[in-house]
Amino acid sequence: MKAPPAWLSPDKPYLVGISGGRDSVCLYHWLVSHQFQNLTCCHLHHGLRGHEADADENFLRELLGSDLIVGHTDVTALAEKESLSLETAARRARHTFFRDCARRTGITQVLLAHHADDQAETILFNLLRGSAGPKGMKPRQKLGNLTLIRPLLAVRRTEINDYLSTHQISFREDHSNAQPFATRNRLRHEALPLLADILGRDPVPALQRTEQLSRDLEEIARDTLDSLDLLDPQNRLHLPTFRSLSTALQRQALHDYLRNHDIPNLTFDLIDRARLLAHPKAPPSLNLPGGQRLRRKQARLFLSP
Amino acid sequence: MKAPPAWLSPDKPYLVGISGGRDSVCLYHWLVSHQFQNLTCCHLHHGLRGHEADADENFLRELLGSDLIVGHTDVTALAEKESLSLETAARRARHTFFRDCARRTGITQVLLAHHADDQAETILFNLLRGSAGPKGMKPRQKLGNLTLIRPLLAVRRTEINDYLSTHQISFREDHSNAQPFATRNRLRHEALPLLADILGRDPVPALQRTEQLSRDLEEIARDTLDSLDLLDPQNRLHLPTFRSLSTALQRQALHDYLRNHDIPNLTFDLIDRARLLAHPKAPPSLNLPGGQRLRRKQARLFLSP
Repeated sequence: MKAPPAWLSPDKPYLVGISGGRDSVCLYHWLVSHQFQNLTCCHLHHGLRGHEADADENFLRELLGSDLIVGHTDVTALAEKESLSLETAARRARHTFFRDCARRTGITQVLLAHHADDQAETILFNLLRGSAGPKGMKPRQKLGNLTLIRPLLAVRRTEINDYLSTHQISFREDHSNAQPFATRNRLRHEALPLLADILGRDPVPALQRTEQLSRDLEEIARDTLDSLDLLDPQNRLHLPTFRSLSTALQRQALHDYLRNHDIPNLTFDLIDRARLLAHPKAPPSLNLPGGQRLRRKQARLFLSP
Repeated sequence: MKAPPAWLSPDKPYLVGISGGRDSVCLYHWLVSHQFQNLTCCHLHHGLRGHEADADENFLRELLGSDLIVGHTDVTALAEKESLSLETAARRARHTFFRDCARRTGITQVLLAHHADDQAETILFNLLRGSAGPKGMKPRQKLGNLTLIRPLLAVRRTEINDYLSTHQISFREDHSNAQPFATRNRLRHEALPLLADILGRDPVPALQRTEQLSRDLEEIARDTLDSLDLLDPQNRLHLPTFRSLSTALQRQALHDYLRNHDIPNLTFDLIDRARLLAHPKAPPSLNLPGGQRLRRKQARLFLSP
């Protein structure tokens, strides 16, 4: 494994999300081996997997001593209360926990162990949901006050395994990773191997390139839209400008406008129906998911209750 | 199935690519049922599948009589001679055949029966090759003098099957479609059903949306680049302008520039190495696949032998 990127400084303080599994334990040892000295590890006991999870916690307490913050939560209860999948509830609980850790320590940068094979699963998953294109996780991601940082995002799972065995590093096996129940585990254990077999080559690098390409194109579209002064001082879409755009830019502009106003369930169909509102002869409003309306009035499009 | 789009006119002459299988036979009957009266069907006997292929040809001769042009080729020989896969050789042979038909008839618009499930396979295939993002087939595609038109590209395979059985239309089963040998057949028969099972929903609409989104973003990037005057009158990249662009736009600009000059095997890595040439202190040239070089001289980037 290469050295950490230059924009991470060994002298700065970081939080490190750690489960006790191979990826996050590797991340920790790798950082320490590169003289990172100001790491506070954050472990959330999810209240799942009974004794195994207790053993993970004990393993980490021995490894890390006072450099460890442990939190406890009940992900099952959270999932039921909020009608979420266990995976989504667990992620949300971890983010809440990281925010707590940041408040307690004053450290807002959180290093996470997601790697290139996790990324490939995410890209495939998002692609097949169809809401946002072939998106992956970002190497750096703002989340409220936190910055989530993923320094292993280009590192393959095999490299992590090699690193652990070369350096004889102990870790805890997470047996739930090997169970093909959850969607992501099935993508990992069934879909990606089948696609590799069909294509006769590893699909992960191709998925990474597709993701980078798509991210580049989005950035270009965003920069282009930013340069157009589409919004008036009241934050309404200026229709004469909007009408002068290509269909593709109109769709992007509406997508961004509605997403920035937290309109849920933005489908392609909805965007195209919103686009029709720009016609002077179309009906002057459209009901949106979540209860708001998009209205056309005096050459402007805007949201109203 | 809906009516054909308004930009197809029943009175105009069209070539129709026809195999005798369910998709193309459905396309033909659907067009006829909407009063398309000037159709010339083009069938290429690939020299594969022996008696079955002869029977396909006879079936079409009975169905279409003098509205049919039949061509004969030997795809196996072509594949060997040009070191191509059978699939690629067959596609190339069909295109050559359509050009012949266009010369003989004076008709340059070719209707093809590719449908939404074909499109999903293509998107997945291109995505996993990683060269061009989640690209699909275009509804209209220029190919030399020909225009390939795919009026069924949004129609699902199930709709085609329903249409055929509702109208009691005979067609020829192509047994090679059911054999999970070729990559595309395996994507159809193994990968897409597995992904549907894992996701708990049909992945085809999501792939279609992703494709449209990616096409929109590319169009925006192309329009943005076109507006920048990056090329000087000698068709060289103007470096001061180039350097002012975002990384994402620089990558797109170089990709387009090299592709427009038919540089083969454009990988992401190559694009990024080409991008480094823009630095005044980088070495002044880069060897490209295919034997040409990209050179930097007097604030320009250009190709030289």
